[in-house]
Amino acid sequence: MAVKTSSISLKVEEGSNAVVVKNLYLSCDPRMRFRMKHSKDPGFVSFQPGSPLEGFGVAKVVDSGHPEFKKGDLVWGTVGWEEYSDIKNPESIFKIHHTDDVPLSYYTGILAPKKGEYVYISAASGAVGQLVGQFAKLMGCYVVGSAGSKEKVEILKNKLGFDDAFNYKEEHDLDAALKRCFPEGIDIYFDNVGGKMLDAVLLNMRLQGRIAVCGMISQYNLAQSEGVCNLMNIVYQRIHMVGFIVFDYFPQYSKFLEVVLSLIREGKIVYLEDIAEGLENAPAALVGLFNGRNIGKQVVVVARE
Amino acid sequence: MAVKTSSISLKVEEGSNAVVVKNLYLSCDPRMRFRMKHSKDPGFVSFQPGSPLEGFGVAKVVDSGHPEFKKGDLVWGTVGWEEYSDIKNPESIFKIHHTDDVPLSYYTGILAPKKGEYVYISAASGAVGQLVGQFAKLMGCYVVGSAGSKEKVEILKNKLGFDDAFNYKEEHDLDAALKRCFPEGIDIYFDNVGGKMLDAVLLNMRLQGRIAVCGMISQYNLAQSEGVCNLMNIVYQRIHMVGFIVFDYFPQYSKFLEVVLSLIREGKIVYLEDIAEGLENAPAALVGLFNGRNIGKQVVVVARE
Repeated sequence: MAVKTSSISLKVEEGSNAVVVKNLYLSCDPRMRFRMKHSKDPGFVSFQPGSPLEGFGVAKVVDSGHPEFKKGDLVWGTVGWEEYSDIKNPESIFKIHHTDDVPLSYYTGILAPKKGEYVYISAASGAVGQLVGQFAKLMGCYVVGSAGSKEKVEILKNKLGFDDAFNYKEEHDLDAALKRCFPEGIDIYFDNVGGKMLDAVLLNMRLQGRIAVCGMISQYNLAQSEGVCNLMNIVYQRIHMVGFIVFDYFPQYSKFLEVVLSLIREGKIVYLEDIAEGLENAPAALVGLFNGRNIGKQVVVVARE
Repeated sequence: MAVKTSSISLKVEEGSNAVVVKNLYLSCDPRMRFRMKHSKDPGFVSFQPGSPLEGFGVAKVVDSGHPEFKKGDLVWGTVGWEEYSDIKNPESIFKIHHTDDVPLSYYTGILAPKKGEYVYISAASGAVGQLVGQFAKLMGCYVVGSAGSKEKVEILKNKLGFDDAFNYKEEHDLDAALKRCFPEGIDIYFDNVGGKMLDAVLLNMRLQGRIAVCGMISQYNLAQSEGVCNLMNIVYQRIHMVGFIVFDYFPQYSKFLEVVLSLIREGKIVYLEDIAEGLENAPAALVGLFNGRNIGKQVVVVARE
């Protein structure tokens, strides 16, 4: 990745319904990795070498030919990794009705909750895991998370209110670690990592357990994915395993925000961000996701207003 | 396995609610394999060396201390692999209201249908697969099955009415075989085999596809299961993967039989059986399941009445 300089017009063409925005905050998401290869996977259009990356971001409208957006509006949606984006198709951006008591960058990443009893979350101090765990706690679940450092484990237990947490890098037997944390087994596994962890979790699922597959970050940089061997437990334990992608839930987004922002205002949800300053630091911030460098949601500040 | 001779009383003890049955037909089921090892899997109690195997069978009541069963009744349920069984706990047997137009042995194996559009079934000429495919056809699905011989493939296409079928042993690239049979992808995969086939299917699932996991027979005799690498497609394609065990559906069994027996009588469902004669041939019949020797449901005839 390289930072390039070029110029664009900050005015929308006469008669067009495009929107020009000034980008404020960019979201670093593991799924951007998929667009960095030639892919036949539907829904993941490959990035073009030489063009800016694309991802979720918070931006301010500079000029608009679209009746729904006017200069000064704050929006959330798909923008380029650049100071200004000319958005030809404003269907991928949404207006934010922002009030000052919630940091604007929070809009870059918030995801839906799950219900249940014994809940396990991998990559639990990441952008998604931190929230899933807190939602599960609010719903009265027993929640355990794993993460890759002592510092992250401390945060899970003392700042995010998880019932327990462990550092997977210090466990040479993941199955044993899960059995220690869940002597009764796991009802819900929120999978962010896949691979060996998923294999160990399968050995610890309870009857009628549910596995929500959000991502498998441990696999994205491998030339060949690790094999998962314990799938027969899906039959033994009558497990429901379901994959999902955030785009599927866009219609519920505004309703979801309403709920979550209230929880944040009431102090019932803590939201951790890892902030990288400046577009020039964006590539390293993105790459850092795959080394577990970030704590909480990785955001890039392009501009503060 | 060995055939042993000993004697039991054919009379139920005074005051007991046990049932003594004469076993007629025994069902050979891959899941019996699980009981042939020490297992912590719930729901699979290990067989005791020296004791008769247990499995599903059709039997006739010889004597009964239970109000629901009387001498001469035909029953289906869990019996021993022996000529007569003394069933202490008759909760695991069910009365059959048999009429002569359906062979009695059919009661040893019948399973629930699935709905959808493009349906793929592995081990399609087996006890379960043959029925799943025909149910799917009756529901208007496009149905393709795979099996392990030319003869089985012919049966699928010409006798069971599958739209297409292939011999997986002749395909060195399972992914390519599936793409040939399903250029539009697969909506429903009924998995009987697991392993490499499941891995190839994951590459061919359509958006919101469903995988019903009935069994993974390709894995049961392996010391270490094969790894399945393409699970990330569960996320890409928002797949629902659900395991189930027939015991969970016992409450619906009588209603199900009613539907299926009508279909058989009307000639809308063909049911293939592979009959082994005599208890002495039962071990070979069971072992044959794992080599794909059987065509259709493997049954052992202990006695015809």
